[in-house]
Amino acid sequence: MILVKVGGGAGVNLEGIARDLAGLGEPAVVVQGANAARDVLAARLGTPKRTVISESGVESVFTDADALEILTMAYAGLVNKRFVALCQQRGVNAVGLTGLDGALIRGRRNRGIRVAENGRRRLLHDDSGKPVSVNVELFRLLLGAGYTPVVTVPILDEEGRAINTENDEVLALLQRDLGADVVVQLIEAPGLLGDPAKPESLLGALGRGDLEAMEPASSGRFRRKLMGLRKMLDSGCRRIVVGDGRLPNPLRSALSLEGTVIE
Amino acid sequence: MILVKVGGGAGVNLEGIARDLAGLGEPAVVVQGANAARDVLAARLGTPKRTVISESGVESVFTDADALEILTMAYAGLVNKRFVALCQQRGVNAVGLTGLDGALIRGRRNRGIRVAENGRRRLLHDDSGKPVSVNVELFRLLLGAGYTPVVTVPILDEEGRAINTENDEVLALLQRDLGADVVVQLIEAPGLLGDPAKPESLLGALGRGDLEAMEPASSGRFRRKLMGLRKMLDSGCRRIVVGDGRLPNPLRSALSLEGTVIE
Repeated sequence: MILVKVGGGAGVNLEGIARDLAGLGEPAVVVQGANAARDVLAARLGTPKRTVISESGVESVFTDADALEILTMAYAGLVNKRFVALCQQRGVNAVGLTGLDGALIRGRRNRGIRVAENGRRRLLHDDSGKPVSVNVELFRLLLGAGYTPVVTVPILDEEGRAINTENDEVLALLQRDLGADVVVQLIEAPGLLGDPAKPESLLGALGRGDLEAMEPASSGRFRRKLMGLRKMLDSGCRRIVVGDGRLPNPLRSALSLEGTVIE
Repeated sequence: MILVKVGGGAGVNLEGIARDLAGLGEPAVVVQGANAARDVLAARLGTPKRTVISESGVESVFTDADALEILTMAYAGLVNKRFVALCQQRGVNAVGLTGLDGALIRGRRNRGIRVAENGRRRLLHDDSGKPVSVNVELFRLLLGAGYTPVVTVPILDEEGRAINTENDEVLALLQRDLGADVVVQLIEAPGLLGDPAKPESLLGALGRGDLEAMEPASSGRFRRKLMGLRKMLDSGCRRIVVGDGRLPNPLRSALSLEGTVIE
């Protein structure tokens, strides 16, 4: 079983990925993002995305009730169903699901983000959290019957309410609990870059030690990405390829080791 | 197995329906609407719902590409996931699905709506159609494992593209193909009314002959509703209750025969 994360950037070639899934010849689980669609919808609705920076310097999206509704419409509605239709057109029997559906992914609601505001400390509460457990039986039921699950946020908190979470953390949890030995991440870049501003700084091959060495100097989302990658190697993942989602055949190219190959 | 249609009116008590499903004691399939949420979203996005009246006098929602995106966000995103979370909170293991997911409901794209405009005839094309077939295996797979499918639009056309359709027609098709012997429709009224403006004109009990007698004098959505009800009786449905979705216990009340009982 192969696990594929489809980034939510506007340039990601969803048609190409659907076509590649049709030619894959093995079961797949897809984790799908939609950040570009979410940002467009939020701007149209006059409620732009809000981010906060914690005391420890980590930037996160702040998910209030409005933001949760908007992300549900963009991730679970618009983009999930657009991708499912593209898959169906190519003979891939995709089933779009959020973490809520069949309690597919349960998480732990964040206890608050500690921020410093005008020199004072405050604890901000939002509708977000960390994924903790997976309904492996539902994945097996669908995979066993030939379906391709396409998973996205929101997920369930401890009380059955919807919360936002990081797709990279969902990916790491699914890799571990479904035992995926190959993971592909398709993003809006040629792969992981030494310098985000320079596409030619592609890091072609990385080992576990490289990830660990890069972590201290990195920050924010990129740091969390590195930690997620390391976690998957530690959970038995044989190979992760971070590939270019904008190519004509994004998944096929990544499986041919174009991009950053992490082993 | 019981089949429940949850109307998409703003006053429908989704919490109460989720609670009633938890106490039901038998498998259920839910067909969920979201017209109020769709209308609010469309207005916020500055693209209000457009309706057209065909030459034969039938009014329909006109689903252009924008309208299809908006309904997907409202039906498959916002309301479907809101209802699934309410179910999960009460121990009902709901799985929200559109007709696209797992090719659950396939339809036939409308060949065009013939309208008269300023005395000239035109054929208007939109993204809508009629549901034709059901992936019964996927329903059985989920019901057999204890899940409660919560189904909504869009559905798949002949080429795997998303189209809008009438939930009443989805309901009639599911009743036939899943062999439901009891169907409950929960709406924003005490039941079917003799005079839509008078809640006290509730029609308490109707037979097949009554439906047939009422059809010629009725029009538009109500006429289609009557035809859908008759179709279900003809397909082996033992009882349909059209009940008040605004009550504290909408489903339990309907199953206690509050509303319009059609047998």
